[in-house]
Amino acid sequence: MFDLVLKNGYILTMDENFTEYKNGYVAIKDGKIVEVGEGKSEFEAKEVIDLNSNVVIPGLINTHTHAAMTLLRGYGSDNPLKVWLEQYIWPVEGKYVSYEFVKDGTDLACYEMIRNGITCFVDMYFYEDAVAQSVKEAGMKAVLTTGILDFPTPAAKTPEEGIQKTKDFILTYRQDKNIFPAIGPHAPYTCSPNTLVKAMEVAIEYNVLYHIHVSETQHEVQEIKNRYGNTPVKHLDSIGVLNERVLAAHMVHPTEEEIELLSEKNVKIAHCPESNLKLASGIAPIPKMLEKGVVVSLGTDGTASNDDLDLIGEASTAAKLHKGYNLNPTVLPARQVLAMITRQGAKAVMMEDKIGSIEVGKDADIVVIDVNQPHLQPLFDPYTQIVYSAKGLDVDTVIINGKVVMKNKVVQTVEKDKVLYIAKKWREKILNG
Amino acid sequence: MFDLVLKNGYILTMDENFTEYKNGYVAIKDGKIVEVGEGKSEFEAKEVIDLNSNVVIPGLINTHTHAAMTLLRGYGSDNPLKVWLEQYIWPVEGKYVSYEFVKDGTDLACYEMIRNGITCFVDMYFYEDAVAQSVKEAGMKAVLTTGILDFPTPAAKTPEEGIQKTKDFILTYRQDKNIFPAIGPHAPYTCSPNTLVKAMEVAIEYNVLYHIHVSETQHEVQEIKNRYGNTPVKHLDSIGVLNERVLAAHMVHPTEEEIELLSEKNVKIAHCPESNLKLASGIAPIPKMLEKGVVVSLGTDGTASNDDLDLIGEASTAAKLHKGYNLNPTVLPARQVLAMITRQGAKAVMMEDKIGSIEVGKDADIVVIDVNQPHLQPLFDPYTQIVYSAKGLDVDTVIINGKVVMKNKVVQTVEKDKVLYIAKKWREKILNG
Repeated sequence: MFDLVLKNGYILTMDENFTEYKNGYVAIKDGKIVEVGEGKSEFEAKEVIDLNSNVVIPGLINTHTHAAMTLLRGYGSDNPLKVWLEQYIWPVEGKYVSYEFVKDGTDLACYEMIRNGITCFVDMYFYEDAVAQSVKEAGMKAVLTTGILDFPTPAAKTPEEGIQKTKDFILTYRQDKNIFPAIGPHAPYTCSPNTLVKAMEVAIEYNVLYHIHVSETQHEVQEIKNRYGNTPVKHLDSIGVLNERVLAAHMVHPTEEEIELLSEKNVKIAHCPESNLKLASGIAPIPKMLEKGVVVSLGTDGTASNDDLDLIGEASTAAKLHKGYNLNPTVLPARQVLAMITRQGAKAVMMEDKIGSIEVGKDADIVVIDVNQPHLQPLFDPYTQIVYSAKGLDVDTVIINGKVVMKNKVVQTVEKDKVLYIAKKWREKILNG
Repeated sequence: MFDLVLKNGYILTMDENFTEYKNGYVAIKDGKIVEVGEGKSEFEAKEVIDLNSNVVIPGLINTHTHAAMTLLRGYGSDNPLKVWLEQYIWPVEGKYVSYEFVKDGTDLACYEMIRNGITCFVDMYFYEDAVAQSVKEAGMKAVLTTGILDFPTPAAKTPEEGIQKTKDFILTYRQDKNIFPAIGPHAPYTCSPNTLVKAMEVAIEYNVLYHIHVSETQHEVQEIKNRYGNTPVKHLDSIGVLNERVLAAHMVHPTEEEIELLSEKNVKIAHCPESNLKLASGIAPIPKMLEKGVVVSLGTDGTASNDDLDLIGEASTAAKLHKGYNLNPTVLPARQVLAMITRQGAKAVMMEDKIGSIEVGKDADIVVIDVNQPHLQPLFDPYTQIVYSAKGLDVDTVIINGKVVMKNKVVQTVEKDKVLYIAKKWREKILNG
């Protein structure tokens, strides 16, 4: 007896062979995928959902965001970076960031992520216990890191305190089925070599991901060169913190030599094309990284710099941007880009055995896309249709750990009216004090 | 007595001063806007719609598409341009393009455009009488041009025949309130100087728009140089067809000197960033054109090369792309980009007196965006929210010529089930012959 069966779907398993089942089914028991295939229509199951030929993909994995910042969506847009940070983002963060702010902001973010088919995300912010609470209530999965910096933050007065708090956080959540704690040294320009090394010691000791911003802007590259006589990736390598547990967000400006290093050391990339464009950070050399075999996943970044949490939109931007920028229509084809937000995302967070594809034994994290809409027809190829024509809003059903968290485009685990109320309340507070 | 009043809306008039009414209303009579303002809540009207604080903008103007090609959505994606054209698009077009194909494809396109808030579009294809029929049934507006080329097309054996047919088409539709006929010489590389000049004579004689693809690819630039010893814009100027009635689609590779010429001659641009990226045509120097005062509007291009008809998505791509490519976060701010799909679009099609802003005396072409959704909150600035956070799918209500053609996200004038049936029928035909 299965717990849940999805039948009559066009299933893109996103396994290594891109196996697909045109009139397929997925059977789920105890939160896991226990059968995938086609040619069966009768099932013994507690619940059977007929998908009406809709397209089924693995749950989407957003490998870089700052969920709570959803409360600052679009705040101070279109300003120079310095003005945006110094006159908009930092003053508000300084004044308001608290457990309540983070919990409310993450509730709003979780609603939007589920709505857009995201089942797992990687976060870096403060009050990650509030984020964990929100993620558990929403029934999502998340890799959570508290930003560690060399100056005082809402989380810690010193980097040592930040590292200690991360250790405690890891011990609290390491057995959780929704929360995957990790360590988050903010960036090479905000963390000393000592902080970066100490953080890596924790990552190795506790076997967790090392989530860090690297080579986001030309300004950063210059700063690191000035301080250490090295470009950022080489700097990280020189102090011994470049290895397979590094998930490097952005990576807009690596040199050819650094791309070789990233490949050699099996560093994973969280490419955030829309944030990089909007903040004018630049355009990352993704085709070169892919050529060298670097694992590239996609992140939305925070909505203060994007301004949405739509990973399908991010995939669409990535697929088109690199074609146009490199004057080559064959780079980043739809299948490869869809893999970036599923299978490659799972590799990027070291959870390849658990999520990222629809295969027996993996967690039942599944997304159904409603293709029976005029803007998604005719459907010649489901991969290109998702990447180039669909929006996150076309996601119809989301299942995480075998549990239906969205059905018929209605999120079940986060209350819409509550997050709308929250968002409007914080808007008033931020604008009127 | 008004015919229709929209009240309690956040109205962005998109007039030259970006006038807005936070708790505003728009009153409509005989298809025209007769009052706009705020501070009134009681109206004598046949129908009053309470907008619940949603955001109101002018109907969106898509200044370059090939609507019927929506039947080829995503067909042959990710191939080199030559393979895509020669093995996918041209064979299907050669075999199937007919009155029926064009009518069906445009019905599907009209559904999608209304769904995305597009009220007026510029088309270039064949069987434009079928397009006209579809547009009238959908209650939209469209500027329609039959592609004129020097080789035989489904419309004409010779360019002379194409021009004659366009004259007939203009005479048939010039008084129509939905159809705005114009002339469409395809491109400088597919039309001889003689064809281009003859087409301009018609444009002047009948006072219509001259819609043409110009400088789309580097290949085209080279081809024109080889043939005429000039780059495309200079070539057009040298034969006397560069003037204020030219709506030039794409314009990816103009030289600095050509940008000066475009400005001087008041040529209008239909920028199609997503198509230019996906087909790897390149990235147009839009900030430079804007600096020189060139009128830039936005087009989706056909869905075979995009693959959607979402002009808000196109605006979002444009706003972000040029910031990242030019390493400057202040170029193409949200207000300017929203103007590109409204007021500047109206200028581009020479209908500035009629559409493009919410002002008394203009046609009542109005779009309501449903911002009471978590992914559009908190709302600090409606312009940035539309451009960076909203999707076409967030459009809730569309009014054209004072008539409600979509309400609560349900298109009223085109049947959803019918266009779904059409799309699937053509898919079978194209794939299985």
